[in-house]
Amino acid sequence: MAVARRTSRDLRSESRLIVVRALLAAGESTRNALAEDTGLSPATVSAVVGDLLKYGIIAETGLLNGAVGRPTTGLRANPDRGRVVGVYVEDRYLEATVFDAGLGRLATVAATAAEPVADADGVIDWIAATLGTALERAQADRGDVLGVGVLLPGGMQRPVKARAGAPDAIWLHLDRLRDRLGLPVVVDNPLKAIATAELWLGAGRRSADLVTANLGVGVGAGIVQDGAVVRGATGTAGEWGHSLLAFEGRRCQCGRRGCVEAYVGIPGVQRTLAEAAPGHPLAAGPGDHAFIEALAAAADAGDPAALAALERTADYLGAALADLVAVLNPEVIALTGMTGWLRREHLLALVRRRVLEDAPGDAAAGLAVELSDRSGMDGIAAIALERFMRDIGLVTTRVLPAL
Amino acid sequence: MAVARRTSRDLRSESRLIVVRALLAAGESTRNALAEDTGLSPATVSAVVGDLLKYGIIAETGLLNGAVGRPTTGLRANPDRGRVVGVYVEDRYLEATVFDAGLGRLATVAATAAEPVADADGVIDWIAATLGTALERAQADRGDVLGVGVLLPGGMQRPVKARAGAPDAIWLHLDRLRDRLGLPVVVDNPLKAIATAELWLGAGRRSADLVTANLGVGVGAGIVQDGAVVRGATGTAGEWGHSLLAFEGRRCQCGRRGCVEAYVGIPGVQRTLAEAAPGHPLAAGPGDHAFIEALAAAADAGDPAALAALERTADYLGAALADLVAVLNPEVIALTGMTGWLRREHLLALVRRRVLEDAPGDAAAGLAVELSDRSGMDGIAAIALERFMRDIGLVTTRVLPAL
Ligand SMILES: [Zn+2]
Ligand SMILES: [Zn+2]
Repeated sequence: MAVARRTSRDLRSESRLIVVRALLAAGESTRNALAEDTGLSPATVSAVVGDLLKYGIIAETGLLNGAVGRPTTGLRANPDRGRVVGVYVEDRYLEATVFDAGLGRLATVAATAAEPVADADGVIDWIAATLGTALERAQADRGDVLGVGVLLPGGMQRPVKARAGAPDAIWLHLDRLRDRLGLPVVVDNPLKAIATAELWLGAGRRSADLVTANLGVGVGAGIVQDGAVVRGATGTAGEWGHSLLAFEGRRCQCGRRGCVEAYVGIPGVQRTLAEAAPGHPLAAGPGDHAFIEALAAAADAGDPAALAALERTADYLGAALADLVAVLNPEVIALTGMTGWLRREHLLALVRRRVLEDAPGDAAAGLAVELSDRSGMDGIAAIALERFMRDIGLVTTRVLPAL
Repeated sequence: MAVARRTSRDLRSESRLIVVRALLAAGESTRNALAEDTGLSPATVSAVVGDLLKYGIIAETGLLNGAVGRPTTGLRANPDRGRVVGVYVEDRYLEATVFDAGLGRLATVAATAAEPVADADGVIDWIAATLGTALERAQADRGDVLGVGVLLPGGMQRPVKARAGAPDAIWLHLDRLRDRLGLPVVVDNPLKAIATAELWLGAGRRSADLVTANLGVGVGAGIVQDGAVVRGATGTAGEWGHSLLAFEGRRCQCGRRGCVEAYVGIPGVQRTLAEAAPGHPLAAGPGDHAFIEALAAAADAGDPAALAALERTADYLGAALADLVAVLNPEVIALTGMTGWLRREHLLALVRRRVLEDAPGDAAAGLAVELSDRSGMDGIAAIALERFMRDIGLVTTRVLPAL
C-alpha cells in the first residue's frame, strides 16, 4: 500500500479529531486548556471549536472559574448530539451497547444462542433484533443513531476451525448488514478497537507510543505508534498472541507450536496448572473466564498450586511483553481484557519485573505496565463517532478497513 | 512523547522529500512520471520540482522521448550538488564512505585499530583522520561536504560489556565531534538507517509497510509502517534480535535467554553447528563473517553437517521472521547484512516456507521475503542529505534522534 498524501484540508480535519479526542478524554475543558493539552495554536483551537459547535459535536457548558483571570466558557463533547451503538459478534454471543455522543454508556443488551449462528441472514437478523432491544432500553430512537460500530474478530482472534462462524458470515456480507439496519455501519477488529480506545480515552492522552495487550481465551496486541493505530499491510498487525514464546513448544489453537497464546491465554494457564498439578480439580473443565476467576479465588484462599500457576503465567506474560518492548519500544503497555487475576499487586509486580529484566538495554526504563478497563466496545464507539464526523464532512483523513 | 502536529508548510516539505526520494530511486524521471509514481498532483510536482531545481538538489538532463507525445525534460538528483559522507564506528573498526548528492558511492576508506579506542578524543581524532583520507580519495573538498552521517550502534546492537567503547564515547560527545569536523553531523542507529535506505531506495518504492531484518554477528530489524521509520518512545524499536525464540533457551550476549540472535546471529549459527557436530573443524574459532562464509563454502562442497547447520538456521530464521509478520504484518521483509549464505535458493526457500507456515492466518499471503544489498551506509547518507535539505529550509518535518 502506498503512502497516503496529505492536503491542507486534512490538517484542519486532523485538528478537529484531536480536539474531539481531547474533550472526550477530559470530560470538560476550555479553549485555553485544549490548546495546552493538544499543542495546537489557540487560533486553530478557536477555529476548530467553532466548527465543532456549529455541527453540535461539542457544546458549551457555561462559565468556568479558572485559576487565574476571568471566567471562561467550558466545553464538552455534546452527549445529546445523538447515539452510537457498538456491537460485538461471536458465534453464539452477541452484545449491543448504546452510547451517547460523549461516549457515555446508556444500555447494554447481551444475547446468547444455543447453537452457533453461521448463515449471514441469521446473523444479520440477530444483530438487528438485539440492536433494537438495546435502543429501546436506552430510550433512543433509530433516528438518533449517528452510527453503528461492529467489532468483528478477524485474523487469528478466533480458532481457524470455527472460520465459518458468525463473524465471518458478516465480513463477507457487510453490504447486506448495512442495508438491513438502514444505518451507517463501520467494522473493525477488536485489537484495533481496543488500541483506539486507549489512544482516545486512556494512555494516549500522555503518550503517542503505546501498546494494548488484550488477555482472554485469545491473546493479542493493539499497537499505537506516533499517535496512530498500526494496522499493517493487510490489517492483521497485532497478532502478538501468535508470535513465539517457545520454539517447538506447546501446540496453539492456530496450529503453530509455542505461541504466546498457548501460555498466556486462559486455556494455556489451565495447561500450566495441569502440568504442575495434574490432579488439581480446576485442571479439568473448560478453560474459560470462569476458570481464571476460580483459579484466582483459589490462589487467594491459599491453594499453592493455583498460586504457582498464576505466578508462572505472570512470568510468561512478562517475557512475552518484553518482546513487544524489544520490537516496538512503547512508553505504556495497557493490559486489557480478562485481567482480574492480575489485580493482585504481587502478580503484576512479577510481570513488571520480568519485562524489565528481559527488555533489551534501557528500552523498558521509562515503561509503564498498567491495567486498563477500556474495551473494544469503547473503541468501536469512538470509531463510529469518527465515522459520523467524516460523513458530515468534519473529518477527511483516515481510511478504515471496512465500509 | 506527544504527537507532532503538522502545518501546511510541512505538507510542501513532505512533498519535496517524496519527490527527491522518488528521483533517487528512479535515477531519471520526468514531471509526469513523478506525479504518477508519487500520487502527488502534477501541479504540486511542478511546484516542488521548481523549488528543488532552484536549490540545485535536482537537475534537468535534457529532452527525453516518451512513449507518447512530445519529448519531455528529464530530471534526476543532482550528483554535483555536493558530497555527503557516511561514517560507521565500532570499537576497533571505522569506515568512511563518500557519496555524491545523488547517493552514488565515490570512495570508501576502512581503518582498524589493534586495541579498542574508547576515549572520546581518540575516537573523534580517528574519525576526522579517516574522513579526511576518504575525501582525498574521492577528490572532494571539505567545502563540498553537505553533511556527515554517523552510524552509531546503540541499544542492544552491541554487547553490554563493551558499553564503554567507541560508539558510546561518541554518543556522549556529539558536540565535540561536530566542532572537530566543522561540518553538519547527523547520527542514527544502523537499524533505522537500513530501514531508511530500504524505504528511500528499495522496497519502499512499492510498499509503505516493510521490515528490514539485518543479519550478522548481531541481529535486528528496521520497521517502516505507513511510510515512516518506527523509532519507538526512546528510539530503540527494532530490537527483534532480542525478542524470544525459545523461552529459557540459549544464553544471549545481552544476558537474556532464548533471544532470536542467539540462534540466528553468526555465533548462534556456530553453536547450532557445534551442537549437531561437536568435533567439526568450523565449530571452534571466532563466530564471525569469515566463519559463515566458510560454513557456506563447506555446505556447497557437500559437507552434510555444514548444510544441516545452515538449514536449521534457515528454519530458525523463518520462525523468527514469522513473529515480525504476526506483530507488524509487513508487505515486504528485506534481508540485509551478511546474507551471503542465503544466496542458495533452497535455503531462502526454507526461510520462506517456515514464514508462511508460522505466520497467523493469511498475514503472510502477499508477503515478499527478499535479499537486499542496501546498507546502513546508504541509509545514513540519505539521512544526511535529508538533514542538508532541512538546513537550507527545503524540509521542515521529521525530527532525528540526535543533532
Ligand atoms: Zn498461535
Ligand atoms: Zn539477546
